[in-house]
Amino acid sequence: MLLSGGIDSTTTLALAARQGFELYALTFRYGQRHEAEVAAAARVAQAFRVARHEIVAFNLRLFGGSALTDDLAVPKDQTPAELARGIPVTYVPARNTIFLAFALAWAEVLGAEDIFLGVNALDYSGYPDCRPEYIAAFQAMADLATKAGVEGRQHIRIHTPLIALTKREIIETGLSLGVDYSQTVSCYDPAADDTACGRCDACLLRLKGFAEARARDPIRYRDAAGVSR
Amino acid sequence: MLLSGGIDSTTTLALAARQGFELYALTFRYGQRHEAEVAAAARVAQAFRVARHEIVAFNLRLFGGSALTDDLAVPKDQTPAELARGIPVTYVPARNTIFLAFALAWAEVLGAEDIFLGVNALDYSGYPDCRPEYIAAFQAMADLATKAGVEGRQHIRIHTPLIALTKREIIETGLSLGVDYSQTVSCYDPAADDTACGRCDACLLRLKGFAEARARDPIRYRDAAGVSR
Repeated sequence: MLLSGGIDSTTTLALAARQGFELYALTFRYGQRHEAEVAAAARVAQAFRVARHEIVAFNLRLFGGSALTDDLAVPKDQTPAELARGIPVTYVPARNTIFLAFALAWAEVLGAEDIFLGVNALDYSGYPDCRPEYIAAFQAMADLATKAGVEGRQHIRIHTPLIALTKREIIETGLSLGVDYSQTVSCYDPAADDTACGRCDACLLRLKGFAEARARDPIRYRDAAGVSR
Repeated sequence: MLLSGGIDSTTTLALAARQGFELYALTFRYGQRHEAEVAAAARVAQAFRVARHEIVAFNLRLFGGSALTDDLAVPKDQTPAELARGIPVTYVPARNTIFLAFALAWAEVLGAEDIFLGVNALDYSGYPDCRPEYIAAFQAMADLATKAGVEGRQHIRIHTPLIALTKREIIETGLSLGVDYSQTVSCYDPAADDTACGRCDACLLRLKGFAEARARDPIRYRDAAGVSR
């Protein structure tokens, strides 16, 4: 399981748990400006009593190129039209390829045949490495990449159970499985006390999803605008 | 350029330099037992006056599963028949997938359209992620993975100029380009003073390549058997 501590990966974890999988969670400290998500992932992993939770650290700030790692402004208060217009500066170059590559490595060592990833191609930010055609291409590559695969001892499948769901459907799924979303973090620009901004793309998508699911978002937002959405 | 400091990546660097590319070298400190190769990569990068040399660090020992990261014995004195028999314990799970994923990320940020990788499918150790079909699948995935690619601003190509060469041909190519192989490290099990063992798969392939090229291997081996091969 790739576990970021956000709504999507947490809901994916809940789905895999419900299906009876033994859970191994993998989180990355990759030089993101805000580490609140790493703490969230640890809370979620503990709540689901995963067999192991590993945090792999490396520094993507060496390369730069993203508002999530560099000192670039995170866009705020974008309209739906603006959100739909191209890939935003919060895109981190090749991030899912790097994350899935590490997941593939760990899966091979564990003898695991299932990698779960909470990508979502509907209510998302337009990232290229969240699309079904990208996942299919990664799968085709992964089928040729490993020793255990080539030797026919292991076939590692990448599962993306949320890929065709709206954020509303994701939240409804999670709530029906008893997910405690108060443990999750979505904000691209949280305050020092970890309260969410309520205005970045991730917060807007999250708030829209809760509103459409007619559910209350249990996390704290740092301004009234955020709370009232 | 993925640069490990071995014969293959150094020769690949020399080929790219001869073709006039501006060189950006990427090396990994991934938890390998022996860091002599990282020092070798730095020497080679300096010799070729690369524009930048970055070393990305992460710890694959978290996962385990390889004689190059774990406390497993490195096979010695294998016969050609033994070398040809399956994928050895020196295989590191999904290593080239992880390395190429980072290269893809950096290439996107740099605006670079060419990734060079010194994999070799003839005189090699049988690793699945050195084969042409694996590289082609990674390329297909990479074509869908990046923002700049999806937006049509950048097409990143993976070059593997050594993939169909024998070790002899690789060494002959490098010598014709003036490569100083005394700066390189191949051994899977070097001594504390960095002398090569002369008996692991990597040393055996290297020594065979130099013997067939009728050239002297300029590095030091720690036992007479190694030197005299």
